[in-house]
Amino acid sequence: MSDGIVFDRMALIGIGNLGSSIARAVRSRGLVRTVVVADTSAEVRARAAELDLADQYVATPAEAVENADVVVICTPISAYASIAEAIAPHLKPGAVLTDIGSVKLAVVAAVTPHVPNGVHFVPGHPIAGTEKSGPDAGSGALFEGRYWILTPAEGTNPDAVARVSTLWARCGALVEELPAAYHDKVLAVTSHLPHLIAYTIVGTAFDLEGQEQRDVIRFSAGGFRDFTRIAGSNPIMWRDIFLNNREAVLEMLQRFSEDLSYLQRAIRWGEGDKLEELFTKTREVRRGVVEANQAQPFPYGTNGK
Amino acid sequence: MSDGIVFDRMALIGIGNLGSSIARAVRSRGLVRTVVVADTSAEVRARAAELDLADQYVATPAEAVENADVVVICTPISAYASIAEAIAPHLKPGAVLTDIGSVKLAVVAAVTPHVPNGVHFVPGHPIAGTEKSGPDAGSGALFEGRYWILTPAEGTNPDAVARVSTLWARCGALVEELPAAYHDKVLAVTSHLPHLIAYTIVGTAFDLEGQEQRDVIRFSAGGFRDFTRIAGSNPIMWRDIFLNNREAVLEMLQRFSEDLSYLQRAIRWGEGDKLEELFTKTREVRRGVVEANQAQPFPYGTNGK
Repeated sequence: MSDGIVFDRMALIGIGNLGSSIARAVRSRGLVRTVVVADTSAEVRARAAELDLADQYVATPAEAVENADVVVICTPISAYASIAEAIAPHLKPGAVLTDIGSVKLAVVAAVTPHVPNGVHFVPGHPIAGTEKSGPDAGSGALFEGRYWILTPAEGTNPDAVARVSTLWARCGALVEELPAAYHDKVLAVTSHLPHLIAYTIVGTAFDLEGQEQRDVIRFSAGGFRDFTRIAGSNPIMWRDIFLNNREAVLEMLQRFSEDLSYLQRAIRWGEGDKLEELFTKTREVRRGVVEANQAQPFPYGTNGK
Repeated sequence: MSDGIVFDRMALIGIGNLGSSIARAVRSRGLVRTVVVADTSAEVRARAAELDLADQYVATPAEAVENADVVVICTPISAYASIAEAIAPHLKPGAVLTDIGSVKLAVVAAVTPHVPNGVHFVPGHPIAGTEKSGPDAGSGALFEGRYWILTPAEGTNPDAVARVSTLWARCGALVEELPAAYHDKVLAVTSHLPHLIAYTIVGTAFDLEGQEQRDVIRFSAGGFRDFTRIAGSNPIMWRDIFLNNREAVLEMLQRFSEDLSYLQRAIRWGEGDKLEELFTKTREVRRGVVEANQAQPFPYGTNGK
């Protein structure tokens, strides 16, 4: 993997936190000759232009993908099917299509039927991001040292997979290939369930009244603050993740609820040994995470997307 | 509140993360003339001496409190009652007794019956700490800009309360007085419930098998990692917190479970509008937390203790 251009022309569909991070990363490293951005919001396009994130800005995905060698979909998942349908007739033969969606089985189901013969679809998911949204939130260093998972279907053109892999590796990411279903199951635990729980507890606190709610915010340093950061993530993006990874999330949620009931019962009946046993076990998991070198300081990669 | 000595002689019962942070904070700022540390572990006393945390090291709380002007209990809550009983006959008339426990009603109930006439008990709780344990984990800067809540009973000697308040304020803390029951209710939301949930989800992940568990750790950057940090906290300390704030924790846990069921149902039935509505609301809470200036970078004050 020598230096230089990996793709001549890149189309970025959507220029939020992730899209703008990709634009910054590939341009600052000279991995792509031309970047074209499509965003339906004129305001967002104008801001992206002010930030000088790309070479061209267009309103529709169809315009953006003309002559593009690589197309990266960077929108909430609910827009994928209509985007895939709209760009299909305009994709260049031999082009590579990829994405950054936090769920992969549903993305494959939404996009694949629209992909023309001769275009190579390599679904992807960078495990990096912050809770902030919009083109200002991005960072060209966002992917350094973070995992970027690819979930190509069997039989996908190996050269297309290799070029996508090279592109993200040259942005600093650790690229891994996994089956889409397995990805969705693991991410349900590492990202989707934690977000769901964080949203829930912050919502629970929101329902407290008056002075109590204000004091919860004032005294949030005791653990709650970390949850508010996670629960400050993009609402549309996360709505789409839960709706599109339903089975895996509900399965993990069921296990979680059983485990929580076990602890609840231990607290009610004063069974300190059960609490201590679990709390000692979870310390081991923390050690594993720290040893896996995934525990860098905030804010890089502290959020599923 | 002029400069200089606030108390002549301080006894610290326990020299873990919090005790050693207090020792460092008061000595580096010259707020106390002499610090005596009691710890039952010879190993911990030796390490504290190596770190030069105090002026004297003794094995029993009773020895430490002789002639002390202020006594600070810095152990897990389960030890409080026996410590209070053991030190009672040795407390100097006029001495001030305080603590750092994360629960206040149970602490008041355990300690108050043993407090001799003429000794002033001012329960306290610094909302600061990290998930690390032991004398090496402390920091003299730990309390800077963090809240330190005092919950003195009505009728407590105002001068004693004022001196404790001055001591912690001079360590950089924002000192607040609250009723003990109210403290416990607010902390159940801001700290105890988040910890319980973090422990649960990390335990749920621990029960996954083989490769799946390893991949959860590898790909932990998506939110789970934050939970492992919280769930890496001191097991004994947290066991005691849950057992001693049972009613408030169970009450908040009940609300949380109802709210989680509501989301679970919304996911199952594909009700995206309900998800989006909550996720938008929780963003407001995050904004409130950031505006309250409680969202400094890790590690200061990111953990209930």
